[in-house]
Amino acid sequence: MTLLLDSPLDMHLHLREQEMLRLVAPFSAAQFAGGVIMPNLVQPVDSLPRLRDYRAAIIAACGPEPFTPYMTLFFRDYSRAELLAARDEVIGLKLYPAGITTQSEAGVADFDRIGTTVALLEELDIPLLVHGETAGFVMDREREFLAVYQWLAETFPRLRIVMEHITTAEAVAVLERYDNIAATVTLHHLMITLDDVAGGLLQPDLFCKPIAKTPRDREALRQAVFRGHPRLLFGSDSAPHPRDKKECCGCAAGVFSAPVALPMLAQLFEEADCLERLSAFVSGNARQFYRITPPQKPVGLQRAAWRVPELYGSVRAFLAGQELRWSLAGSGEAKV
Amino acid sequence: MTLLLDSPLDMHLHLREQEMLRLVAPFSAAQFAGGVIMPNLVQPVDSLPRLRDYRAAIIAACGPEPFTPYMTLFFRDYSRAELLAARDEVIGLKLYPAGITTQSEAGVADFDRIGTTVALLEELDIPLLVHGETAGFVMDREREFLAVYQWLAETFPRLRIVMEHITTAEAVAVLERYDNIAATVTLHHLMITLDDVAGGLLQPDLFCKPIAKTPRDREALRQAVFRGHPRLLFGSDSAPHPRDKKECCGCAAGVFSAPVALPMLAQLFEEADCLERLSAFVSGNARQFYRITPPQKPVGLQRAAWRVPELYGSVRAFLAGQELRWSLAGSGEAKV
Repeated sequence: MTLLLDSPLDMHLHLREQEMLRLVAPFSAAQFAGGVIMPNLVQPVDSLPRLRDYRAAIIAACGPEPFTPYMTLFFRDYSRAELLAARDEVIGLKLYPAGITTQSEAGVADFDRIGTTVALLEELDIPLLVHGETAGFVMDREREFLAVYQWLAETFPRLRIVMEHITTAEAVAVLERYDNIAATVTLHHLMITLDDVAGGLLQPDLFCKPIAKTPRDREALRQAVFRGHPRLLFGSDSAPHPRDKKECCGCAAGVFSAPVALPMLAQLFEEADCLERLSAFVSGNARQFYRITPPQKPVGLQRAAWRVPELYGSVRAFLAGQELRWSLAGSGEAKV
Repeated sequence: MTLLLDSPLDMHLHLREQEMLRLVAPFSAAQFAGGVIMPNLVQPVDSLPRLRDYRAAIIAACGPEPFTPYMTLFFRDYSRAELLAARDEVIGLKLYPAGITTQSEAGVADFDRIGTTVALLEELDIPLLVHGETAGFVMDREREFLAVYQWLAETFPRLRIVMEHITTAEAVAVLERYDNIAATVTLHHLMITLDDVAGGLLQPDLFCKPIAKTPRDREALRQAVFRGHPRLLFGSDSAPHPRDKKECCGCAAGVFSAPVALPMLAQLFEEADCLERLSAFVSGNARQFYRITPPQKPVGLQRAAWRVPELYGSVRAFLAGQELRWSLAGSGEAKV
């Protein structure tokens, strides 16, 4: 049994730089026609020259495999001229509250002061992508931030807003309420809860931001995704860290899911008896909300089991060592 | 400024065995007149011969320092004869739900079947110490278990029950309701929440079971302890793991707080302006509830700062690298 996906897209992706970029980019390029590239590098991508350099590095890292990096600029105060110049080269601006996750120190410290730039985004029809967490108690951060999304959606009704990597039932409820809001959902938040991170032994490889929530939250995400909500977009938030950042005192947050994304999604959708909705989740919904047309790139999946390697270079992947039922068609993955 | 404590007691302590026992026991003996020794060794302490061997090993590990190990037997079905024989050598039986924490596989799988042994404990006036967690969602495990405590307290009204290492506001509320229930509180649960474990970088050294809860829960514990609740007993739950069990994929649960217990408690009580209540928390309340009279052993604390070493042997201690305001009087701790 095979499954052909028409230009699948990963709408939230961390590709890093240099050696790590060269290690991980091919896994995304092998599965996706394109992806939305996060700008929170050690030096944030907050200017067109940096953005162009980064795009070129990504394309080089993907090698012969066609892959469209949909670039984002790190949110700061931008002038109208800057945004006009950038508009055709970005899919959106990515907003981080200051200090909320990996390399977000340059993010927004005061939401009362973002209105001018956000109004320009609305006027110029540039989407705003948001890491929506407060600095509150770790399990409450996303819920506490939802008021900001509501304020944005109501104050800027023509602005397209993307709630990135949502994890809670309450975020799904906000999504329902506003047509100008879409949301990305990761693979791992469809699968794990805090129990998987800290319920048995502590599992640094499953530690991510936003942190995995409760079984009730996961169920709400799964219901919304599997029922085919038209404004839920797949975004892996695949975020590799080398082993030494995962095993030291103080482990970095991020799950490296790129190598397993499509095969595992196919398995989940099959288990939920809605395989016919996978294509919309990984491509159609994103095209519609973002109004993009990726280059045509069919990606085949086959129902052939394989085992996820323990390590990819220095990085341990999501589901390392586990057997998956679906694999990339024509991939060289070792069959079980 | 010095503070003299009269025979302080650590009412919940993991001393391990062999090399680790010899490493960690002196830290408890230096600060405490005695401690309640947990029986969940790799081979549970569930017979008198094993208990006697373990007690002898502990006393040997403490060296010249006087320290009374108050021994516990691992809860299983015991006969009346067994309990009669053990009564004078144990401070209580320690009950673990099966599989709920480190080395608890031999614990109770079916609470409907413990009544006979628990009735014997009540008859023979042997306290029952309980690790009170269900196998539910990690943040709800203690709350879900509270019904068992209530059943025990009401079904066996003369049984003395200790809720070990409580972490939630709801557990404090249960404590208020039943005179035959006491509870131990750790140092770390007075200080940390899940934010400290997983709110920034993931901190394996702060990962423990029960997992640290919310700011609201911590506040309820602090209020109850600092106001001098007579049935709240200090129990460090100090539980050392070597570095390699804290830094691998899958980190073990346990905070090694023995080296800092009394100095940090003094600091907390001083900050809460209730230093005069420290003695009851670390000794008086336990003597009263357990009806024990430890050998006289005054322990002095002085208001002299020191820095907690990064490592004790292979073990990283709670508050490693941090400066504490109080130290053991006459200790060889390096002063800052």
